[in-house]
Order: sequence, then structure tokens, then C-alpha cells
Amino acid sequence: MEQSFTLPVIAHIKSPYGQKFAVPRQSGLAPDALSVIRFVPPYSDPRAFWGLEGFSHLYLLFIFDKVPAESSFRPQVRPPRLGGNQYVGVFASRSPFRPARLGLSVVRLERIEQQAGEVSLVVAGADLVDGTPIVDIKPYIPFTDSVPEAKGGFATQPPALKQVEFTQQALLDLKDLTEREQRALVQILAQDPRPAYKTQERDDKVYFALLLGYNIGFKAENQRIVVVEAHKHAL
Amino acid sequence: MEQSFTLPVIAHIKSPYGQKFAVPRQSGLAPDALSVIRFVPPYSDPRAFWGLEGFSHLYLLFIFDKVPAESSFRPQVRPPRLGGNQYVGVFASRSPFRPARLGLSVVRLERIEQQAGEVSLVVAGADLVDGTPIVDIKPYIPFTDSVPEAKGGFATQPPALKQVEFTQQALLDLKDLTEREQRALVQILAQDPRPAYKTQERDDKVYFALLLGYNIGFKAENQRIVVVEAHKHAL
Repeated sequence: MEQSFTLPVIAHIKSPYGQKFAVPRQSGLAPDALSVIRFVPPYSDPRAFWGLEGFSHLYLLFIFDKVPAESSFRPQVRPPRLGGNQYVGVFASRSPFRPARLGLSVVRLERIEQQAGEVSLVVAGADLVDGTPIVDIKPYIPFTDSVPEAKGGFATQPPALKQVEFTQQALLDLKDLTEREQRALVQILAQDPRPAYKTQERDDKVYFALLLGYNIGFKAENQRIVVVEAHKHAL
Repeated sequence: MEQSFTLPVIAHIKSPYGQKFAVPRQSGLAPDALSVIRFVPPYSDPRAFWGLEGFSHLYLLFIFDKVPAESSFRPQVRPPRLGGNQYVGVFASRSPFRPARLGLSVVRLERIEQQAGEVSLVVAGADLVDGTPIVDIKPYIPFTDSVPEAKGGFATQPPALKQVEFTQQALLDLKDLTEREQRALVQILAQDPRPAYKTQERDDKVYFALLLGYNIGFKAENQRIVVVEAHKHAL
């Protein structure tokens, strides 16, 4: 019996998330954050996408390639949802630190683009770091994939959100963002991207996150995130 | 940039489906069909499953290993849902004939078993052929995974069902099945497992399918499946 399988990379994602820090902890939490899935030949063939326009949502199956491949199996992780200090089994979590390093996200399909005979998909709500390799996409079929009554263990509700505010300086720095990008930025920061054990605290530190082509500086309080500055930052 | 990734097999499934023929075409269509996921060391470590009991549903990520690895990319498939004679893009389908041969199914978690320090999961509604290798499992998180309003393209409804009946001989042959196995068998056959282009037809042929440890012979009519005989068949 085979003990492993090798999967080809069919695409890479161009996403608003320039690094792991500040990526929402599940898909759909920043519904206005747009990403582009760029297929590589031969998988970019337009015939491979016939009929996809009838589906509103997709699964992305991808590799957490920023996580080092495991040298030995670690059976437990400390998910941010439990404050980052409580252990659960890796197979009871969606942690990237898992044997296959395989990720799974549900995204909304915004549109299918074609340029020079190659297909790209514009999707909303992805939670993948920019450049992440994708090994498969699948149409989301609600009658088999949607289980609204499912019991969600320790993650029964979306994470609590914080109010996001901007200083005058930050507004000026970010004036080139489109309205939708502004909404995406607010949705991303409202999650409070700081390490989980800090989100109950106010601290005076300015955190920086690479988002939407900017290096964005913000401070965090109990119920509030304040964006204080931003600088253009090529990905 | 890496062009492929190698994923370890963490488990194999023991399922009611002795071959591809008669496997339901999506998960959840035979909700009483039970399968057992047997993890291989070191992934069978009970610590890796802490907290899983709080989730009612799981994703299984598996390899369609009965499908030959592609020698070249075929961009289109003919899904059974469209009668098996109409082409769609492979990425608009859940066909096993895809570059990664990666499968994705939502199943209900029935219970977690442990024997001699190794974990097995009993799940309901899986659509995997017996022996299929599994590369990852993930807890199903309804707030991010369930999209009841999603548009399902050419698969907006579950497939139509047929009435399932048994001859006296078949009832006798199958008397050792539990009630739940009987229900599972009816759910499986109600899908009409014949090739898609035949399901509008009545034919006189007796088809055989390896299900639940039996080789089951059935005939098919327009609205009706009749089980005519069954023989024990070790998997």
C-alpha cells in the first residue's frame, strides 16, 4: 500500500495577505477581501472551467507552504480560538501544523477571467497567504456540502469583532484604497490579528501587518483597533 | 517554486463499497452507510483527536487511488449528473479524474473508538471505496463551511431516487444484515447505480454490486430497483 501521494500544483493565489500575520482565522470572515487564483499551464486551459460559472462558491485545497514540513508528527496544537494556551488534537483543529499541510477553504466565486488563453478566478473571502500553492479546486454543492445544523465543537460562533478606527494620518496614507478594499481592511482588522493570548489586553505597541499592498500600523485596545499609519509595500 | 507536494497517508477507510460501482455520487446520500477510518501510526495517537467529540461532522480528504494517475491533463469530464454524455470542465466537477486525484467528502462523526492505543473513527454517509487512503481529516465548522444559499450549478438538487424492492430470495439471502445495514442498502440502490446513460431505461440485465459484504444482484426499471439475489462476498 502506498504511504504517500504526490499532488501537482495547479495554481497560485494572489491575495491581500502579504504574510501569515493578520490572515483571518477562517475563510469568509473578510468577505470583501478579493484574491485572484492564477492557474499554471496546462491547468489554465479554459475548457477545464466550463460550467463553473453556475456555481457561486468553491472549495480551495491548498498547501500551507509557509509552515515547515514536519520532521516528526506532533499530535496536538494550541488553536487561537482557545486563547492559544490550551491543547487540542491536530485532527480536531484546522491548524496548518498538520501532517499533510493541506488547507481547505470555502470562497465565493466573483468572476472568471481569461487573458492570453489562460484562466484566472477572482474569489472573495479567501484566507490564504499571498503566493500559496493550490492543488485542487472544487465546486461547492450545497445539498452535500452544506450542513447548517452541524455542531462546531470549540468553534461554534465566528470570532468576536472589534471596532476599527483610523487616525487622520492613516486615512491620508490609505486614500488610494477602493471602497471595497477599505471594507476588506476593516473586516480583517476587526478580527484583532494580535496573538490570541493578547486579545483581552490593551497594549501600547504598534503592530504592523502587510495587507492590500500596504504595511499597516495599528494599535489595539479591549474593544477597539486604531489604524495609526500605513506605507505602500510591494508584495 | 515547488511544482508538487507529497502528502502522507494517515488512514484507510473500511467502507461498505467493495468497488467503484454503486458508490453514491456524493457524500450524505446514504446516511445509514457506516464506514470506519483506521489511522496508521503515528497518526493513530489518541492525543491527536482530543476535542473531536465536540464536532458532529468531518471533512475527509482522500486520494482516488483506483483512478490511474494522469499521464497528461484532460481538461473535461462527463459527469453522471448530466447523463454521462455532456462535457464540463474538470474544475467545475467533483470527478475523480482530476490532476490531484484528491477527493473531499463531508461525513457525520458517529463515534470515536480506541483499541490497543490506536484510534478509529466511525462515520456515516461516506462515499469512499473500501480501502481508500486518507491524507487528512478536518472538523466541519458550520459558520465557515456551511453555505446553504450557495448556487449549485448543474447539481442543484440531490439525484432523483427510485423505489427499492426485494424478491423473497433476496430477503432470505440478506437476512443477516442489521436493520441499519438494510436501510443503507436501500439508500444506496435507490440512487440507481447503473451507468448514467441507462437510468432512463428499463433493461432485463441483472447487475451485480459489492455492497456491505455481499455481491448483490439487482434489476432496474424506470422507477424501481428490484434486488433479486445476494451472495456473501468477503472484501
